[in-house]
Amino acid sequence: MTGLVLHNYWRSSTSYRVRIALAMKGLDYEYVPHHLRYGEHLEPAYKAVNPQGLVPALVLEDGRLLSQSLAIIEYLDETVPEPPLLPDTAIGRARVRMLAQIIACDIHPVNNLRVLTSLRTVFRAGDQDVVNWFRHWVNESFQPLETMLSSSSETGTFCHGDTPGLADICLAAQVLNNTRFGVDMSPYPVISRIHEACMALPVFQRAAPKNQIDAES
Amino acid sequence: MTGLVLHNYWRSSTSYRVRIALAMKGLDYEYVPHHLRYGEHLEPAYKAVNPQGLVPALVLEDGRLLSQSLAIIEYLDETVPEPPLLPDTAIGRARVRMLAQIIACDIHPVNNLRVLTSLRTVFRAGDQDVVNWFRHWVNESFQPLETMLSSSSETGTFCHGDTPGLADICLAAQVLNNTRFGVDMSPYPVISRIHEACMALPVFQRAAPKNQIDAES
Repeated sequence: MTGLVLHNYWRSSTSYRVRIALAMKGLDYEYVPHHLRYGEHLEPAYKAVNPQGLVPALVLEDGRLLSQSLAIIEYLDETVPEPPLLPDTAIGRARVRMLAQIIACDIHPVNNLRVLTSLRTVFRAGDQDVVNWFRHWVNESFQPLETMLSSSSETGTFCHGDTPGLADICLAAQVLNNTRFGVDMSPYPVISRIHEACMALPVFQRAAPKNQIDAES
Repeated sequence: MTGLVLHNYWRSSTSYRVRIALAMKGLDYEYVPHHLRYGEHLEPAYKAVNPQGLVPALVLEDGRLLSQSLAIIEYLDETVPEPPLLPDTAIGRARVRMLAQIIACDIHPVNNLRVLTSLRTVFRAGDQDVVNWFRHWVNESFQPLETMLSSSSETGTFCHGDTPGLADICLAAQVLNNTRFGVDMSPYPVISRIHEACMALPVFQRAAPKNQIDAES
């Protein structure tokens, strides 16, 4: 084994999170695409690598598998300290993890492709039902997230101070995902401002879905 | 302000996670119940405390709010080191966070009360539809979780070695939750064995839903 291998999919927002972290840490990796809509992640060859059959998954130099985007990012942050993706105080880390998990636990899991597909197959949801569902769960969590960000003196150019970190990674990936479902961002000026600050950075651009080898128009 | 205040609900499995961690760390706290089925968590007085209106939320001695169960537990682990809830190596921590997040990101968010309620109201899901949905998402993640646990030499009495930690906390809370929806646990002997090892510990018992002041029969 030589080097890191990232199993991922250009449009998966959790894949995007890990790509941003890898780019911020300056790490090179082999990019292995799995086309989710064609079910490539469910093939036996990939399930032998990652029993969950989900992306992203990072295979380390020694062949070990890491899955779950937040666990991968914390591992990268612990093993490649610069630039740090978490603050240097326990309470700061708690705040950033809280902001990240509002997106990673309360929004994304309910809105990811396999859940939306289940709504269609199990409950015969139509296109507009799926769009409404997606928007509903974004708004349920973006409203309090906006309140928390706008009311805290710890919010800076980014979610926590003036350097980007774990919460910004989740925020940027979610806001980009929102555009596919036409989420009205006008109630969220602070989230929007932070997203723009993220997308002004070359690492967020380089990792962006449209700039991946498997990107489709 | 004096002491910790835990806003929670006896039957919420994310509340249970935080109660286990508090018990393991030997921390006392004021228990403030919010009855989710009566919508008490959505009242303005509580939203002023936690804009998300979700439980659990921990108010610290200085009045600061922490929400998101995994963020709270990592904070407790960083500020009260004994007994540790994460391993002492980066790769060990990554494995435990990965196992925890399989439950905390891939199972619980899709199956929590507000999502199940939405299935009923938006898609007119009936009782059996809801049960099927719950079981489906548990099985989707418990199958690979069982594979990962049973195939790793790092699995011991608990998910990672012979002392309980973050992954076991999530596992125990999820397995207990499963009983309400009649999930067949026979395909999951390792998960079941770890759950039994957890429930043999007084801290897991003391934190258990049925032993809380707001528990109903």
